[in-house]
Amino acid sequence: MGNGTANMIHLYGTAEQKKMYVEKLTSAQWGGTMLLTESEAGSDVGALTTTAVKNPDGSYSLSGNKIFITNGEHDLAENIIHPVLARIEGDSPGTKGISLFIVPKYYVNPDGRLGERNNIVCSGVEEKHGIHASATCSMTLGGKGNCIGYLLGKEREGMKIMFTMINHARMSTGLQALTYGSASYLLAVNYARERIQGRDLENFADHSAPSVPIIKHPDVRRNLLWMKSYVDAMRSFFYFLTVRGTKARLADSEEERELNENIYSMLTPIVKDYLAVKGHEICIQAIQVFGGAGYTKDYLVEQYARDCKITTIYEGTSGIQAMDLLARKIGMKKGAVFMNFLAEIQNTVAQAKEANGLNHIAGQVEIAANRLGEIALHIGKKAMSPEFKVAFAHALPFLYAMGDTIMAWMLLWRAVVAVEKLDGAKKKDAAFYEGQIKTAEFFINTELPVTLGKMNAIEASCAAALEIPDEGFGGI
Amino acid sequence: MGNGTANMIHLYGTAEQKKMYVEKLTSAQWGGTMLLTESEAGSDVGALTTTAVKNPDGSYSLSGNKIFITNGEHDLAENIIHPVLARIEGDSPGTKGISLFIVPKYYVNPDGRLGERNNIVCSGVEEKHGIHASATCSMTLGGKGNCIGYLLGKEREGMKIMFTMINHARMSTGLQALTYGSASYLLAVNYARERIQGRDLENFADHSAPSVPIIKHPDVRRNLLWMKSYVDAMRSFFYFLTVRGTKARLADSEEERELNENIYSMLTPIVKDYLAVKGHEICIQAIQVFGGAGYTKDYLVEQYARDCKITTIYEGTSGIQAMDLLARKIGMKKGAVFMNFLAEIQNTVAQAKEANGLNHIAGQVEIAANRLGEIALHIGKKAMSPEFKVAFAHALPFLYAMGDTIMAWMLLWRAVVAVEKLDGAKKKDAAFYEGQIKTAEFFINTELPVTLGKMNAIEASCAAALEIPDEGFGGI
Repeated sequence: MGNGTANMIHLYGTAEQKKMYVEKLTSAQWGGTMLLTESEAGSDVGALTTTAVKNPDGSYSLSGNKIFITNGEHDLAENIIHPVLARIEGDSPGTKGISLFIVPKYYVNPDGRLGERNNIVCSGVEEKHGIHASATCSMTLGGKGNCIGYLLGKEREGMKIMFTMINHARMSTGLQALTYGSASYLLAVNYARERIQGRDLENFADHSAPSVPIIKHPDVRRNLLWMKSYVDAMRSFFYFLTVRGTKARLADSEEERELNENIYSMLTPIVKDYLAVKGHEICIQAIQVFGGAGYTKDYLVEQYARDCKITTIYEGTSGIQAMDLLARKIGMKKGAVFMNFLAEIQNTVAQAKEANGLNHIAGQVEIAANRLGEIALHIGKKAMSPEFKVAFAHALPFLYAMGDTIMAWMLLWRAVVAVEKLDGAKKKDAAFYEGQIKTAEFFINTELPVTLGKMNAIEASCAAALEIPDEGFGGI
Repeated sequence: MGNGTANMIHLYGTAEQKKMYVEKLTSAQWGGTMLLTESEAGSDVGALTTTAVKNPDGSYSLSGNKIFITNGEHDLAENIIHPVLARIEGDSPGTKGISLFIVPKYYVNPDGRLGERNNIVCSGVEEKHGIHASATCSMTLGGKGNCIGYLLGKEREGMKIMFTMINHARMSTGLQALTYGSASYLLAVNYARERIQGRDLENFADHSAPSVPIIKHPDVRRNLLWMKSYVDAMRSFFYFLTVRGTKARLADSEEERELNENIYSMLTPIVKDYLAVKGHEICIQAIQVFGGAGYTKDYLVEQYARDCKITTIYEGTSGIQAMDLLARKIGMKKGAVFMNFLAEIQNTVAQAKEANGLNHIAGQVEIAANRLGEIALHIGKKAMSPEFKVAFAHALPFLYAMGDTIMAWMLLWRAVVAVEKLDGAKKKDAAFYEGQIKTAEFFINTELPVTLGKMNAIEASCAAALEIPDEGFGGI
């Protein structure tokens, strides 16, 4: 995740040192990484075994092995600054015993000049499905010499400090997926306008009728509008939440800060995973619009599909995001944060009911939002009951049902604005605004009924996934 | 699709020639291909421009360019036999003017000895997303010399004859996707049994509790059972339909032949596309079980995902299968074939209602089958109305709703057998049979409600995809 390291540097050393590190990192004169994962500590970071031993001068000697380190080694920058999670000798197991250290590739003198090479080395580079421009490294610390690191923040506060960056990274990962999806959609639309294939369905039986661009075919239009509906809604959702994050940072009052911070925190796992999964699905559908050509490397869509797939995995897999949402987020402030969120949807519904032609779809979003409230209560209660495992077996479907409802909300919101702007719009702009209204109609009439089905499935609380004997799964 | 060529050779030449070709092709002494696609003639085969000119000796001289030819050139076999779709000079445009020719790589003497090289050459090999072991070739016919072909069957019957093979190939493509999905599932199950990560949810707060295999985590179990439900159901569906095909071939009476042939024909587009799409989704979910490891080339799942993606494209894309189902299949015999199919589902429902513990899920499948009947009538009527384009904008969702219902049917069927066998089964077998019952419960309680939502969406008949102005899609 590039230079995210700069987010943490204020916690390190003297004011002069902080300034120097931040400037060199944000200007990309130096590179940054994030060393969490070990081969036996992935989703369970607390299982890590990298250790730190304090030296007389206050620095630490680190030793251990880390994997899946993005930009772990390269020569595109003068230096690389590695924040490393490790356990100080004697500290307790689990996440509570973890501290965070700054480990520079080259030692840094107080005046900023680089010294000797630190003993942190790249011991392998992964061959991957995609993101080939990113070197995913295995890193060995202190394997053949002293690897010196400097404590960042306090002892045993490593996870808390690292999460400042992880939360940012989760938002960025959602954005990354949205970007692949958006680019794939636009490539597909442009291809569908240019690719001539088959007669218009109106002239299906007339072999002398001319061939038409495939954007004229109903199934291609359905697919394009499906992609567009998610791309538009996910973009609005990302902006919406980013604005809330900014409002929290710039808030005048503690009340305003908390209000914005809480919704930002609650919806972060949805930005992270919903955008990742849907972004990837959009890339896959874009391949479909290109047909056989889309399966070749002559077009970018197959690469975007491979690149995008990582976003459902790194910075916490789908399952981890779903647990975060159910275990920590929807119950925040005894459910008040969630209720505020539903109230915001209903605000948009009320506006849409006043807007010309949106009454029907507004009503559908209202139904979905109310239903989401019921389902959240249902799964939230179950998560705190003796049947909590059943709740967690439905946590990811719940994340998707909530994400779908947010998509409908965002598209309805866009439609409200579009109806307003359409009145007296220029011809070129009118097509854009009409497109917004049709996109909302499409999603709310054809995707949202499926969402209601997902909610019914969550409510049914099927426990089969827990009841099936392990041997019943088959395999060897 | 390998040696599919052998399917057609009975239409060609003398009995001795046929025998020789068939033996050499089926023994893989010779390779086979299928030359349909051209750069401007993909889904619309009728647009092809390869031409054939009759020679005085009865053979034809062919010239043109074909693309996306699987196994178009290689040296793994002595000879390669290319069936080629081309238009005889002067014949009408569209599919009705197309004839089929046998074009050998090396000329074949009457005694089977190979002669000189024919002028059909590989002019390019595609770089692709997956299936790297298969050479996807561009082929040039008659570019620098005479390319001789022999008419197979009668003039202008090329499409009809080729479709004998294409229908087989569509079934094989479904099987291919099922195989990737099944293999990915089994790899994921085995990994989930071995990979230790995180504490059991029961001990979530206890940092000293041991880590467990990830198969113990509710979300992983949900994902595995999701995969298993599709793999099991798709396998049964493939077998079911293959048996019907065999019954049609071996039928004693014309009535029996027609009965079996019709359901085989009606459901072929669902085997082709539903298995392709779900097979790919399973591969993607298998990557998810492996986490970061699944994104690397150290494990097979990422390769299977890439390989499987081709199955939604070749032998007719998803959109083409959906059109086939709606335009040609569900209305066969005025809907009698479809009604027979529904009656078969209801037979299984009746059996399940008698079986111990299956009454509830049997009732859910009954509801879904009845609802599918209503939706088929709805979309079938609309496809023949002035609003036919709206119907075709929902054709692919209809294919998926029908496929889902078939999955539920197959799993219910398996559960009926499992309930019977469970009584007095050995412990090892009991886990297998319990697994079957739990799989049916899972799918019918958590996937089928979503299917009902899809059906509601089809019934809503949203026309937004047709109403949105072309410029409203954006792009450039």
